[in-house]
Amino acid sequence: MKHTYFLGLASLALAGNCAATEKVVVSQAISVHEALAAQEAWCKALIEIGSTYEESGHEAAKALAEKVLDTSYGFQLGVVLFKPTLTVSPQTFRTARAEALSYFVGGDPAFPDDAGFALKGWRKCEVENAAVFITGDSATTMGKVHLTDKEGSVTSVDKTWKFVKDDAGKLRIVVHHSSLEHSED
Amino acid sequence: MKHTYFLGLASLALAGNCAATEKVVVSQAISVHEALAAQEAWCKALIEIGSTYEESGHEAAKALAEKVLDTSYGFQLGVVLFKPTLTVSPQTFRTARAEALSYFVGGDPAFPDDAGFALKGWRKCEVENAAVFITGDSATTMGKVHLTDKEGSVTSVDKTWKFVKDDAGKLRIVVHHSSLEHSED
Amino acid sequence: MKHTYFLGLASLALAGNCAATEKVVVSQAISVHEALAAQEAWCKALIEIGSTYEESGHEAAKALAEKVLDTSYGFQLGVVLFKPTLTVSPQTFRTARAEALSYFVGGDPAFPDDAGFALKGWRKCEVENAAVFITGDSATTMGKVHLTDKEGSVTSVDKTWKFVKDDAGKLRIVVHHSSLEHSED
Amino acid sequence: MKHTYFLGLASLALAGNCAATEKVVVSQAISVHEALAAQEAWCKALIEIGSTYEESGHEAAKALAEKVLDTSYGFQLGVVLFKPTLTVSPQTFRTARAEALSYFVGGDPAFPDDAGFALKGWRKCEVENAAVFITGDSATTMGKVHLTDKEGSVTSVDKTWKFVKDDAGKLRIVVHHSSLEHSED
Repeated sequence: MKHTYFLGLASLALAGNCAATEKVVVSQAISVHEALAAQEAWCKALIEIGSTYEESGHEAAKALAEKVLDTSYGFQLGVVLFKPTLTVSPQTFRTARAEALSYFVGGDPAFPDDAGFALKGWRKCEVENAAVFITGDSATTMGKVHLTDKEGSVTSVDKTWKFVKDDAGKLRIVVHHSSLEHSED
Repeated sequence: MKHTYFLGLASLALAGNCAATEKVVVSQAISVHEALAAQEAWCKALIEIGSTYEESGHEAAKALAEKVLDTSYGFQLGVVLFKPTLTVSPQTFRTARAEALSYFVGGDPAFPDDAGFALKGWRKCEVENAAVFITGDSATTMGKVHLTDKEGSVTSVDKTWKFVKDDAGKLRIVVHHSSLEHSED
Repeated sequence: MKHTYFLGLASLALAGNCAATEKVVVSQAISVHEALAAQEAWCKALIEIGSTYEESGHEAAKALAEKVLDTSYGFQLGVVLFKPTLTVSPQTFRTARAEALSYFVGGDPAFPDDAGFALKGWRKCEVENAAVFITGDSATTMGKVHLTDKEGSVTSVDKTWKFVKDDAGKLRIVVHHSSLEHSED
Repeated sequence: MKHTYFLGLASLALAGNCAATEKVVVSQAISVHEALAAQEAWCKALIEIGSTYEESGHEAAKALAEKVLDTSYGFQLGVVLFKPTLTVSPQTFRTARAEALSYFVGGDPAFPDDAGFALKGWRKCEVENAAVFITGDSATTMGKVHLTDKEGSVTSVDKTWKFVKDDAGKLRIVVHHSSLEHSED
């Protein structure tokens, strides 16, 4: 039997640098780097769903959106607390997978108001965080997300995401509250 | 030395029912009941700040708001991710205590747009949750909060709260994202 | 679309009582009841592996032990911090599944000292907790476990278990430190 | 109002390097570095209590031990799950502060068997971790601790520690299970 011990701080650094050694540290804690990377991945996915739509049509875009939901959100954990930017009562909250899918790519007769947010041709997606709060088993970010469309016009939304780490070590969105900036008019 | 052991499930029930026994269970987990009670407390505080304002003036209302912030929010933990309903850029997010205080009771020249949300004379505050997600060390709720003013007109907001339990066992708000319902016009 | 909302504390009770409604609460927090039930399950499994051995032989006992490890421990999360009662250096810690399996049912030439702890014919297994500490995403228990063999003689061990809840909602042991009572001789 | 935003991964690095900026990230997650540093601090404290005893007597050693308990353990959170190396039934578990204090420095008539573990003149304390499991809001380590006394003889114990982070960001021991290595004789 081969056992890889590590001794104090010195050898931990070693363990950290050497991925080939036997696994001795399991961390289900979320780092701020992981949270920011998950934000970037969300932005990238949003743009990819749109470009897939333009290049390959609705079915392909929908298939990609399903993949994004299944790998980046936590619907398999039970529900996701999702308040998309543009939904209205009584369909404001989209806590089930099908409800979220309709929001992103539309085409579901049960949600006649959904035009497909990801199909709007977004070209750029930038996250500007106000603050991050990590409680240990979850990380929550709050800030603005600036979305640029193909004409170059920018829509800014106020967005809160809560991420958890699943058993496989992947971050998943379990809370997503998005809202247009308040207008005083 | 007196030691209160408990044996298996049977005597646990006893321990649960008998607060006088020596403490043998510490739970920093958050229950859904605790989360809902914290929501109710927030509603009650909002209305009380308003009625204190009407009965005793601005200073008294401000003092009460400070007490609410210090006991119900987590500013002492570092920052609170607070996006109030009516704030606008570049003062959208109120992550520091003074910024949150200004939103609730106004009167701070650094925030000229703040009229004091808690001073609007709210008479009723009802929480209608869409879903609750408890990760263990935090609980997040999402849903609508219906606020009724003195004329009986109702404002509904979409609201996300994340609560943590502090070392003393008290729930504190560390994330609060509120937004007016989206209007399609 | 059918949405099951709940309003405040009153309707939460309803949601709690009615498992047929759409899921609106996800809780990854661990309750003390869940922790105690997991302890009982461990005791039951230990005795079952032994009785399977007596009735159906080593292969059947080993197969059951593998099932217990795969459903009650967290090896699939990376490592389990397992210090069994009777192991000695340099094979004290059994952080990998095969190492733990050998401890429980023996027969692995890599671990010549392992006689198979679960094969000793235990007839009774009682947990006497000193205290429980739940941090939210994990619960740790500490106390004595009293094991009675077929001759009626009792072995008491000091035992610490840390449980986490996996993505499917099942408690899993990720830390297990067991030691014979200290003798002053 | 001055607000320090950060944008994506690039400016996070900035935030991480510049402690003078307004606080934008709160992390209650525990890193492996923090856990290892807390282990080192425990070792250092153990040796210091002993040298204080030799140099300044029992009262000074007791005062230091109390300080260590109050700053490094979590008794103020309710209980600590503490199974010291050398305790025997019915005083095996030391879940209250006074019980732990007696173990480390003795002198309490309620615990006649306690000679004062920290007064034994330990000269060296080395931690050899088998593995670390971080669930997010707690970190648990398991491994051997090698203690060298003034004659140079080494005692090795099997030790499990669970650390949580308190509201002020300090790690505290909430579980501590220590046992002498099993002897097959």
